[in-house]
Amino acid sequence: MLKAFENVRKQCPLVHCITNYVTVTDCANIVLASGASPIMADDISEAADIASISSALVINIGTLNERTIKSMLAAGKAANAAGVPVVLDPVGAGASKLRKETTAKLLSEVKFSVIRGNMSEIMALYSGEMGGKGVDSAHKVDDSAAKMAQELSKRTGAVIAISGETDVIASADKVYKVKNGHSMMESITGSGCMLTALLGGFVGANKERVMEATAAAFAAMGIAGEQAYEKVSQKGEGTGSFRTYLIDAISLMDGSVFERRMKIE
Amino acid sequence: MLKAFENVRKQCPLVHCITNYVTVTDCANIVLASGASPIMADDISEAADIASISSALVINIGTLNERTIKSMLAAGKAANAAGVPVVLDPVGAGASKLRKETTAKLLSEVKFSVIRGNMSEIMALYSGEMGGKGVDSAHKVDDSAAKMAQELSKRTGAVIAISGETDVIASADKVYKVKNGHSMMESITGSGCMLTALLGGFVGANKERVMEATAAAFAAMGIAGEQAYEKVSQKGEGTGSFRTYLIDAISLMDGSVFERRMKIE
Amino acid sequence: MLKAFENVRKQCPLVHCITNYVTVTDCANIVLASGASPIMADDISEAADIASISSALVINIGTLNERTIKSMLAAGKAANAAGVPVVLDPVGAGASKLRKETTAKLLSEVKFSVIRGNMSEIMALYSGEMGGKGVDSAHKVDDSAAKMAQELSKRTGAVIAISGETDVIASADKVYKVKNGHSMMESITGSGCMLTALLGGFVGANKERVMEATAAAFAAMGIAGEQAYEKVSQKGEGTGSFRTYLIDAISLMDGSVFERRMKIE
Repeated sequence: MLKAFENVRKQCPLVHCITNYVTVTDCANIVLASGASPIMADDISEAADIASISSALVINIGTLNERTIKSMLAAGKAANAAGVPVVLDPVGAGASKLRKETTAKLLSEVKFSVIRGNMSEIMALYSGEMGGKGVDSAHKVDDSAAKMAQELSKRTGAVIAISGETDVIASADKVYKVKNGHSMMESITGSGCMLTALLGGFVGANKERVMEATAAAFAAMGIAGEQAYEKVSQKGEGTGSFRTYLIDAISLMDGSVFERRMKIE
Repeated sequence: MLKAFENVRKQCPLVHCITNYVTVTDCANIVLASGASPIMADDISEAADIASISSALVINIGTLNERTIKSMLAAGKAANAAGVPVVLDPVGAGASKLRKETTAKLLSEVKFSVIRGNMSEIMALYSGEMGGKGVDSAHKVDDSAAKMAQELSKRTGAVIAISGETDVIASADKVYKVKNGHSMMESITGSGCMLTALLGGFVGANKERVMEATAAAFAAMGIAGEQAYEKVSQKGEGTGSFRTYLIDAISLMDGSVFERRMKIE
Repeated sequence: MLKAFENVRKQCPLVHCITNYVTVTDCANIVLASGASPIMADDISEAADIASISSALVINIGTLNERTIKSMLAAGKAANAAGVPVVLDPVGAGASKLRKETTAKLLSEVKFSVIRGNMSEIMALYSGEMGGKGVDSAHKVDDSAAKMAQELSKRTGAVIAISGETDVIASADKVYKVKNGHSMMESITGSGCMLTALLGGFVGANKERVMEATAAAFAAMGIAGEQAYEKVSQKGEGTGSFRTYLIDAISLMDGSVFERRMKIE
């Protein structure tokens, strides 16, 4: 795990993100904080070109539209062709027909290395049904999560990663549980998106061990959440400061802190 | 007023925002800080669906374009049909022909519960004329403001809320004045947009008393501005920190602080 | 130089930015922090109108698309016609065919007052070739930079400004070097975009001395970077806080600090 963490700073992977405009700045900043290099580009005329030269492609459907859906598909296929790993964040997958259909289309035309979502989003992918409350999770990660994740992993070939109090990361034959993190992460926008962007760099720098890279990214983000919470609670600060300290923590995290604090089973 | 404030945290309303990409992150974060849940979605294929299941719809024309104008109209009508209150922020309404025409179209096709702007923007709506300096106000709230707001309220059926040193909130038969706030709020982008997004949650959680909800949202935002100013002036910090503390203050505000500090007449 | 710096706060120029959605919030906030007033507007129906009434137009190609390219061209021409200075940030100019072609088209149809980029971006403009690593610079500013910048300045008529450890600012017959700044500026997204947006205000308030205005903006941004670094290193904070303090520093900077710390040769 430590090696997966350290490879990001060593290799400085280029992470191409086609992502929503709500959390895009924070995504770019956390990618930089981890030692990787972000490029955001979503026009059909360059999405495939840029995906091909990147170390990883991250597709986030948070504020998708007709124009960017085309770019997601083109970039995803180009990344597949070039052997570039692709990470999906199906934001609010159950919140509208458009999101449900787009997710289905992406899954059928693009091969993903990792799919990361909250419990409601992964359930929407699994069942093909709508549900959830907007983009926030209406469901907790429970005992059924690992089983569902493994089945979805078999179907898609992707590592399935579910954010929750305990995170579940599953392939067809293995499950990691990550117990880092703090509930305050849900009180800002973009904790999930930032984690997915971070995942892009971790997977891009660790193409041969995607499961480990995914678990390491979850642990790193969780540790950052714990550290940010410690700081705001000491200083009596709120969610604005928490968001700043989250990025601080990723930028300051070294291998020894990561190794000491990570809780991966 | 206190009840209107507390209902947001109790009910956690889902606030659908079709808003500009300049301040969208801060809008989402302040909505979360107040206890509500934001969803940003602006594609025509899902805007109406999402508006219908939300507690409130917020339309902000800050960086409007042909694509999003259609979504604003579709979402606005769907919200009206579903009984979901709609809040309008006519950013820079007098700054271009496009904004003037879009505002007129929105007002003729959608019924708004609240319209919030600065003095220049509300004057542009009232007179149908162009003016103002870009998106900042070229006019101060003066004695004529309440009268203009009441007339505009009669015409539109909406509560008219004008941000200024003293905020004016008017329906056809009532006027509130809110004296919270600090001039430093004008030195960051998004104070107005954030207040409008906040309003979405307050109105969504208080559908039966829109005037009180509006006044409470203005007071809460103003108190946050005062607290953020107190903090940066103590610490000798600038506008970057001010913006962070503004969101901190909303996230930390409880009923007792709100009640003690609010200045609503 | 001091006068160029002080003119921004005195004249409060309106800066129209057609810019990317990754760093747009920070761009708006730094423009406000410097004393200028930002307006972001990128729809073809209003871009020319707003450019004409502004003090400066800033075009940043960070997340360009077919829709905004048209607006950039229309706004650029309108600004030229109205005598409004235009500043270009060719973000990732060598990263894709789309960016290369768009930059060439902008250069052939719009007259720019200043073009600001990193070494890779300016080299891409100079040679017409692709290269660089995404949007980050793969090349250091070296001895050849000033010569290249002067030749590009002769070709385009624009002041050419290259960000690096030592910044190079060149017209056909003059070169300034600015030695302010800190390497931590590269660890957040938007240092370059923010500087370009700042440049808009500086040039808009100093139309008769564009070289001096450009050098002053680089020095101000560099000083802010140094001050932000001093603060985070004292407090043991990371890149999230650095970004906040950068904007703090611009908002708090007065003429005496600027004059004492600027290193312009």
